[in-house]
Amino acid sequence: MQDIIQAFNLNVDMAVEARDLIRGTTNQEIQGVEEQVEKMENIKVTTITIKDQNGAQKMGRPIGSYITIESPPLRINDPYVKDEIIKAMVKSMPLLIGNSLPADSTVLLVGLGNWRATPDALGPKFIEYSPITRHYHQYAPDALVQGMRPICGIAPGVLGITGLETFEVVKGIVEKVKPALLVVVDSLAAQNVERIGTSIQMCNTGIQPGAGIGNERQAIRQEDLGVPVIAIGCPTIVNAAIIAAQAVKQFCSNTSAIYDEIKSLNAVQDVLSFFGGSLAVTPKEVDDIIENTSRIIAMGVAQSLFPGISREQLELYAT
Amino acid sequence: MQDIIQAFNLNVDMAVEARDLIRGTTNQEIQGVEEQVEKMENIKVTTITIKDQNGAQKMGRPIGSYITIESPPLRINDPYVKDEIIKAMVKSMPLLIGNSLPADSTVLLVGLGNWRATPDALGPKFIEYSPITRHYHQYAPDALVQGMRPICGIAPGVLGITGLETFEVVKGIVEKVKPALLVVVDSLAAQNVERIGTSIQMCNTGIQPGAGIGNERQAIRQEDLGVPVIAIGCPTIVNAAIIAAQAVKQFCSNTSAIYDEIKSLNAVQDVLSFFGGSLAVTPKEVDDIIENTSRIIAMGVAQSLFPGISREQLELYAT
Amino acid sequence: MQDIIQAFNLNVDMAVEARDLIRGTTNQEIQGVEEQVEKMENIKVTTITIKDQNGAQKMGRPIGSYITIESPPLRINDPYVKDEIIKAMVKSMPLLIGNSLPADSTVLLVGLGNWRATPDALGPKFIEYSPITRHYHQYAPDALVQGMRPICGIAPGVLGITGLETFEVVKGIVEKVKPALLVVVDSLAAQNVERIGTSIQMCNTGIQPGAGIGNERQAIRQEDLGVPVIAIGCPTIVNAAIIAAQAVKQFCSNTSAIYDEIKSLNAVQDVLSFFGGSLAVTPKEVDDIIENTSRIIAMGVAQSLFPGISREQLELYAT
Amino acid sequence: MQDIIQAFNLNVDMAVEARDLIRGTTNQEIQGVEEQVEKMENIKVTTITIKDQNGAQKMGRPIGSYITIESPPLRINDPYVKDEIIKAMVKSMPLLIGNSLPADSTVLLVGLGNWRATPDALGPKFIEYSPITRHYHQYAPDALVQGMRPICGIAPGVLGITGLETFEVVKGIVEKVKPALLVVVDSLAAQNVERIGTSIQMCNTGIQPGAGIGNERQAIRQEDLGVPVIAIGCPTIVNAAIIAAQAVKQFCSNTSAIYDEIKSLNAVQDVLSFFGGSLAVTPKEVDDIIENTSRIIAMGVAQSLFPGISREQLELYAT
Repeated sequence: MQDIIQAFNLNVDMAVEARDLIRGTTNQEIQGVEEQVEKMENIKVTTITIKDQNGAQKMGRPIGSYITIESPPLRINDPYVKDEIIKAMVKSMPLLIGNSLPADSTVLLVGLGNWRATPDALGPKFIEYSPITRHYHQYAPDALVQGMRPICGIAPGVLGITGLETFEVVKGIVEKVKPALLVVVDSLAAQNVERIGTSIQMCNTGIQPGAGIGNERQAIRQEDLGVPVIAIGCPTIVNAAIIAAQAVKQFCSNTSAIYDEIKSLNAVQDVLSFFGGSLAVTPKEVDDIIENTSRIIAMGVAQSLFPGISREQLELYAT
Repeated sequence: MQDIIQAFNLNVDMAVEARDLIRGTTNQEIQGVEEQVEKMENIKVTTITIKDQNGAQKMGRPIGSYITIESPPLRINDPYVKDEIIKAMVKSMPLLIGNSLPADSTVLLVGLGNWRATPDALGPKFIEYSPITRHYHQYAPDALVQGMRPICGIAPGVLGITGLETFEVVKGIVEKVKPALLVVVDSLAAQNVERIGTSIQMCNTGIQPGAGIGNERQAIRQEDLGVPVIAIGCPTIVNAAIIAAQAVKQFCSNTSAIYDEIKSLNAVQDVLSFFGGSLAVTPKEVDDIIENTSRIIAMGVAQSLFPGISREQLELYAT
Repeated sequence: MQDIIQAFNLNVDMAVEARDLIRGTTNQEIQGVEEQVEKMENIKVTTITIKDQNGAQKMGRPIGSYITIESPPLRINDPYVKDEIIKAMVKSMPLLIGNSLPADSTVLLVGLGNWRATPDALGPKFIEYSPITRHYHQYAPDALVQGMRPICGIAPGVLGITGLETFEVVKGIVEKVKPALLVVVDSLAAQNVERIGTSIQMCNTGIQPGAGIGNERQAIRQEDLGVPVIAIGCPTIVNAAIIAAQAVKQFCSNTSAIYDEIKSLNAVQDVLSFFGGSLAVTPKEVDDIIENTSRIIAMGVAQSLFPGISREQLELYAT
Repeated sequence: MQDIIQAFNLNVDMAVEARDLIRGTTNQEIQGVEEQVEKMENIKVTTITIKDQNGAQKMGRPIGSYITIESPPLRINDPYVKDEIIKAMVKSMPLLIGNSLPADSTVLLVGLGNWRATPDALGPKFIEYSPITRHYHQYAPDALVQGMRPICGIAPGVLGITGLETFEVVKGIVEKVKPALLVVVDSLAAQNVERIGTSIQMCNTGIQPGAGIGNERQAIRQEDLGVPVIAIGCPTIVNAAIIAAQAVKQFCSNTSAIYDEIKSLNAVQDVLSFFGGSLAVTPKEVDDIIENTSRIIAMGVAQSLFPGISREQLELYAT
């Protein structure tokens, strides 16, 4: 797959998949990387910790913690599984934030992605379903805001529809609002269709589009913003080139044909050249998946940030 | 591909692709089927006429005319190409309708598909952009409606969101409104990614979901409705199974591997089993494609039905 | 107000307001009309029963039961009030339906109004948030549909955007689907701004646009459809002419000026003539009001129709 | 009306209406204010120039130029009127900008208002329909961008849904992007229903919510941003209190009743108190009005900023 990923300039957005890709070739522990798995009734939580530069280079992402919450297929909208996922998110947050977030400090939520392209609308929908409270602190009686930390949120759109780099918009707002924490939500691309709508990844290293390809300047991360950044994502597509290459590989392993990565790549390019690398594979129910996961992530984040407030109360504050 | 198409229960929505699939194996004329190609500056118009039951059986669709308008890639939103396509639609209509449509007879527009799933929203968007005039005939002064045939339109939704068969809704309305013609617009699935957003198919045999799979009862066609039906569609997706199978086939033809259709099918199923056959491949710009093609089809249909009215005037009547 | 209502051809959509208008002049019991009021913690339920033709003529609406659920201002999105309203709806339903609805009979939900005009979108939103189950009865295992009556739903749009009379569409579908009951939801116009978003009216006499003005043909009611019809509505606007006339009247009662209904009407017409009678007064939060009340009505109807199913389960079936 | 405006804390958004309110009492020239009227076939262009502090204080807005383009009622979507309006906008721009805008300098478009409340969505829709080109300058071949000045755009949302002051977002972006000009579009409140959807106001003094009420801090203007600001707006609502007060006044002038501004105000407050001052009067066709005027403003601005490019070409670049 590595050839396909490089040839089509694809991201490996999920740490668990980056680990699988490396393990696939070496089949052994990755130096500088630790892993811990916890299983609950319906969900599995994998924590990958990249501990040093060696691990960072191998994994193609920065030193830090990457938590993946996986729930069994097709049950994501089950209210009990929903609850379990939200609880797992709330439990994971302190590991990522540390315990340093004062109770009355401001948090800025950022919903990345394009609201006009369904599979890319996870971030904007997250903002829509999140409780926003910062303005009450200026205008409302104290009673209202007791226990309600100031939360603000923005979906900055994408370069193609605003002409603005996401970093420019976010950096500008951070300088004005001076939040204590950023929570950034974005759609991810997966390597396997089973992950679409069934995994949530949380990490404390920010979001770095094009990491490893030498295009570091747009990263939404603490180094560049001066504020800790929690990034949360859910896979909503698999690139069509990955699917096609997997089928070729599977065909070879099912037959006596010899798999040749370069010839596989050529075949995939022959089939998909028309739209370049931008063909996405999505399930027909992608609208529902975006709707459900954006609500779950919004609620998981809100319950982490407002520990004393009930979920029904939080839903009233959702914009 | 035939194995994949059957195994995943896929439709071959485009007559030109059905022809290619048959030709692919026989490489000769198809008995009972005639074909005519016309090239213009930026577009190519292919008319396939199925003349008898023999041709119908081979092509897997009814006797009738199938016109495909193809425009070169990536230029669909060029205003000059747009004009050419609209003109080709206007020119094609009489071949499909015959000359029997009285100037003051009512036409019912039907936009099939699910407005909540972007690639399936072509039909509902078509209704949104079409001029609707039937109500003026009851309420407005004669001057207003001169040259404006009564047009009404509905997007009946899909079974999954209404619990109603499309046929039930359309048949009920046809019995009340008694139109002289139905124009039905729907998204299509293609076999090749290059067709997405670049081809428009028009035919006079209605729309028959699941044609050839023995599920004939929902067809929107003259036999069941008692009214001529023009069906117009544009490909917006390719099934992921088709892409994967094409890559395997291409790989075999690029290497010395022997292509085996059943083993290819197995490989594709191994990769895609998680979401069944419902994984769609779409370009990232699918929202724009739906927007542009639905407007072009609406204008092509409107100019066919209101021959004396300018395009600017028609846009004023669009709902 | 009666002059204004007639001059601007306005509807008095709510039975409790029709009663107030009559009482306003006579200040006594209305013959043939009974009324019963029940107060709960946060809500008040008024049942008006029109018992004979005499009452029907005075009230300007057919013989039948009209239940109005009123909740205190500004608290409509409080989860506890929400629960109380839903319970009051569930309790009121049997009075309107009678006990004759077999457990497995089909119900057709109809969401009237224009989805492109926010204050008129209550009906279409109601369909969006209602559980739809009829299609499962054909395609899904028995287990799934146990206790789930077949429900289907449609938002037929308005004449101005479809060119179709609502009655034509609904009658056509009723003839095909043969439901045992229709539940029709629509936005209402109120006479007082305090009712906007705070009252829900349920009745068993259908919806009769233009009742009393001699335009009876479009009524969605049992006499014309052959199926019992429950109509549910919530006020979302007050006509601007009403507001203006109320201010004039209030001014006269605050000063020594003599109120003259005809001169008041002339003044209102002078101020509002530009847009005819179609100027609506809405609160700025009308989008939220539509969102909240459509969800509450959807849940109240669903819990009435699926008595054994939990709310969380019902939300999973909402389309 | 002044009492109503103060009591309900309303803005007089249009300079021509501020002038009428002052003239109403003094019936003479306003010192420090000049006015010029130009009539064309279907439109009237009024230029009000506030020349000194005296005029500014009387008019309740800063020194600068205020151009109002008015088109006759009900014809706003006529394509010929549309063209005339766009031409009048293009002609007015240099008066507001001066001639100092270099051909390759960046312009930032800002669409104020709430995309979830129809009458307030003019600004966000303006961004949607405007050509955005800044990103092409980084990534596309020179040929593409010849004559295409870098344009970027953002709809920052409103405090209630983001928790962010508009000024914070805009100031942050201005500091990063360093544009040579801001063009800010917003919905306006009018004093007369005839202005809804029929007037466009352009000025070079920015947008100053709450001007004159002592709340100057959020103004989007050159003094605070360091960049010239053109503000463009179109009235989409009239406050219900204005309508009600006008009816009382009209009633008094139609009868022998003596108009008393304070008692009129009391009557209006009695009628409207429930929703405070936030009741808006809108025509039923407000969705269409927003759609049409946002497109017209987008095209007027685009043709001003890209003088050599055809309208069809510009529409291709609209996001």
